[in-house]
Amino acid sequence: MESNRKETRLSPEEIDFLHQIVDLSLDWMSKNRDVDEPIVRFRTPKELEGLIDTSITDKGTGMSGILNDLKETMKYSVRTGHVRFFNQLWAGTDIPAVMGEWLTSVMNGSMYTYEVSPVFSLLEINLVEKLHSLIGWKSGDGVFAPGGAHCNLLAILAARNKASTNVRKEGISDKFVCFSSIHDHYTIQRAAGVIGIGEDNCVKVAVDGVGKMIPQELEKAILEVKAQGKVPFFVNATAGTTVLGAYDPLGEIAQVAKKHGLWAHLDACWGGHAFLSKKHRHLLNGCENYDSVAWTATKCLGLPQQCAMLVMKERHALTKCNAMGKDYLFHEHDEKDWDLGEKTLNCGRRVDALKLWISWKVFGNDGFEARVNHAFSQAQYMTQQLKKNPKFKLLAEPQSLNVCFWYIPPSARGLPEGSEWDKKVDNATITIRKRMQREGKVLVNYSDLHGHDAHFFRMITCNPGATTEDMDFVLSEIDRLGSDL
Amino acid sequence: MESNRKETRLSPEEIDFLHQIVDLSLDWMSKNRDVDEPIVRFRTPKELEGLIDTSITDKGTGMSGILNDLKETMKYSVRTGHVRFFNQLWAGTDIPAVMGEWLTSVMNGSMYTYEVSPVFSLLEINLVEKLHSLIGWKSGDGVFAPGGAHCNLLAILAARNKASTNVRKEGISDKFVCFSSIHDHYTIQRAAGVIGIGEDNCVKVAVDGVGKMIPQELEKAILEVKAQGKVPFFVNATAGTTVLGAYDPLGEIAQVAKKHGLWAHLDACWGGHAFLSKKHRHLLNGCENYDSVAWTATKCLGLPQQCAMLVMKERHALTKCNAMGKDYLFHEHDEKDWDLGEKTLNCGRRVDALKLWISWKVFGNDGFEARVNHAFSQAQYMTQQLKKNPKFKLLAEPQSLNVCFWYIPPSARGLPEGSEWDKKVDNATITIRKRMQREGKVLVNYSDLHGHDAHFFRMITCNPGATTEDMDFVLSEIDRLGSDL
Repeated sequence: MESNRKETRLSPEEIDFLHQIVDLSLDWMSKNRDVDEPIVRFRTPKELEGLIDTSITDKGTGMSGILNDLKETMKYSVRTGHVRFFNQLWAGTDIPAVMGEWLTSVMNGSMYTYEVSPVFSLLEINLVEKLHSLIGWKSGDGVFAPGGAHCNLLAILAARNKASTNVRKEGISDKFVCFSSIHDHYTIQRAAGVIGIGEDNCVKVAVDGVGKMIPQELEKAILEVKAQGKVPFFVNATAGTTVLGAYDPLGEIAQVAKKHGLWAHLDACWGGHAFLSKKHRHLLNGCENYDSVAWTATKCLGLPQQCAMLVMKERHALTKCNAMGKDYLFHEHDEKDWDLGEKTLNCGRRVDALKLWISWKVFGNDGFEARVNHAFSQAQYMTQQLKKNPKFKLLAEPQSLNVCFWYIPPSARGLPEGSEWDKKVDNATITIRKRMQREGKVLVNYSDLHGHDAHFFRMITCNPGATTEDMDFVLSEIDRLGSDL
Repeated sequence: MESNRKETRLSPEEIDFLHQIVDLSLDWMSKNRDVDEPIVRFRTPKELEGLIDTSITDKGTGMSGILNDLKETMKYSVRTGHVRFFNQLWAGTDIPAVMGEWLTSVMNGSMYTYEVSPVFSLLEINLVEKLHSLIGWKSGDGVFAPGGAHCNLLAILAARNKASTNVRKEGISDKFVCFSSIHDHYTIQRAAGVIGIGEDNCVKVAVDGVGKMIPQELEKAILEVKAQGKVPFFVNATAGTTVLGAYDPLGEIAQVAKKHGLWAHLDACWGGHAFLSKKHRHLLNGCENYDSVAWTATKCLGLPQQCAMLVMKERHALTKCNAMGKDYLFHEHDEKDWDLGEKTLNCGRRVDALKLWISWKVFGNDGFEARVNHAFSQAQYMTQQLKKNPKFKLLAEPQSLNVCFWYIPPSARGLPEGSEWDKKVDNATITIRKRMQREGKVLVNYSDLHGHDAHFFRMITCNPGATTEDMDFVLSEIDRLGSDL
């Protein structure tokens, strides 16, 4: 590995390896659009260990020596970009964004200082400002963080530090309490544990029949906590809940929060795509009254992992919360405002902005809007089909891209709803899903939910390559796989 | 954007864009090896805004329409992979690892569940076990996290939750105190603030002349804290401090920690590369006595951002600390032990293991060892040259890859050391560094340090492409740029 200054160009071995990877990539992305290509060839961990040589030797395989194991790695990996992948809150392959990731890895910047990442810092700041304007703010603060959970953690941390100016230096002495709905994302309650207020001090507020937090219940809970002599400081509202895709009534929740002097945070990690559509923007009405908003572009937009943003209404709020002022890295210089590293809990931080900028610029606002509108229209079509088909039962009227439903297997048809029905329907969900995974033609996830005893299918319709044919296919496939149950 | 099922292959536009990006990537990586290619063409943020059209329009540019802006983006970005980049704790371009990133973005998995990332989960578990064996543990727990700061946060959180079984649920009621050296990484103290014990309750222990924590001082501090009725719970030792590259005396520190019942954490984010070298492994002697160890493969190994691991000696320690048991994502199934998502503070998490596995397997243990040994030998050469040259003054005997020194400009030569000397030397550091950045031929960072009044150069010698010629070039270039000062 001793450097040889004569090597001023890439070696033939390096160039050849690069072209092999390009070919594998083209083949993978192309086959994502082929419904006959399996989404997954399921193997157990033990089976996989026999198929892929994971071992690392002293001598090394050389670049050509790993190609076969890479092909096997791909063969047994899940095609999340496949047109019939509906399993997570993301799907599809955004080629300009993938190209953004390729350049990101080639250029390998780090988002802490302007001096080492001048253009990437500029792009990140531009995208933060773009989100400000979509929210309706004229200014503010913001940063990219490694995932939505980290955005929410940054938000609750900033709220805690604002609620008590001593807490950052001296530690917690108040009995802080935060609020979120029973349908929120689990990382909110976990964050309450992380920052030292305790998971039990995250009060879970009731929701209505479609999954929206009930503002009156929130206010009641705040008053109760105050009466106990505790310190309410933070309310999380959700735009796009994880299971039902519900949007909390944002305006009313913010009003309650403000009335009682609480930090209002909007977890729009999933549902923030509505920012991009004139037709669906109304779901986010009231968002401008929040102190912080989190959004991840890896979900409905299908950008490669990771690309999450947290913005705050107050300028320098993040720096105030997280900066440590270390001169070894953050020097005094004229471009200090462009050093983004003091806004997060990272030190070194990968460049997540380039891919979002490339995709957004290439497709434009119109392209993103069309993608979001397509996703909503697929959910609406799916809902209509479910309502027409007596073999299925909708769990709740979908508010966005999550369509939750039960398949009623032959043995449960005609039964009254109750424990027997629940048992049979629950078994059908689990059994069909397992068969679906083993066949690999389509992948839809399932879930449980507070107040329901039977697991159900949670279909996510954000796949940009999917059409109404695929929606029909999901239902016919579930029926086929469950016809003996 | 309406899907058209006839498009079962990539479009000519998509394929052409991909090939353009490949060409840009090849050109970039190739020129990294050319000393005549500038590392940076410095521009202010305002200047950059005039050079790159960051705007996003409704219609979008299309793929070919963004190429020119991408070329400008690259033109004004910093070449961290350049053979004369010595500015950060990382350098170089690892082509197999970059190819790992390309596949990672194409396949776009997420590390939370086995069902969605079977092979990637297997690889991550294998790499965690590889680190266990390098440490000398037979088993344990572990996970990849988005950067070293997050690894350290996960460690101190687990320690806090172990120190008090109620704290996760009920919040902090004890007066917890943690310990770390005055030369530690700033994110340790920040983490103490994040988890609610308070930054002031991170006691900073004194170091010796080369930057190693003094174990006797640690014990004295623990006893003092106990006498105050507070609860010491966590000691952080550093393997490879950020500025001086010092390795704390690991065996002795662990012994003090164990004696007083404290969690011992080893921040080997920077210095963990010594695991890979038989020659330098002794620097990490005693590491097996720690409860947790953090290491980032993006530093000395030069893998693309991000690739950090936290391992723990106790099995299931991470799951115990972070799992929320949400069935919508983490189903009951036979492969539950391979679901890694309940070990971290992420929910969705990008695949950081693939690139490390590819690089390690391609180059082998021997290849990684050679890279680490090369980095150490460059530091030793640089140190020798500095000692021989009266225009320079070494700040402390380097313990690993950080060579810290002052340049004594003509106006300070012959002056006694004192405030006048400090002023002139400090000015020389800042002025030369600015000139260096504006010329772009080489990039070396500078730093301050507790106990010294003049900023100094901090040269990091982990660039795999650099040779002794480059070490000589750094010194002659600093002398050239400072000859009028």
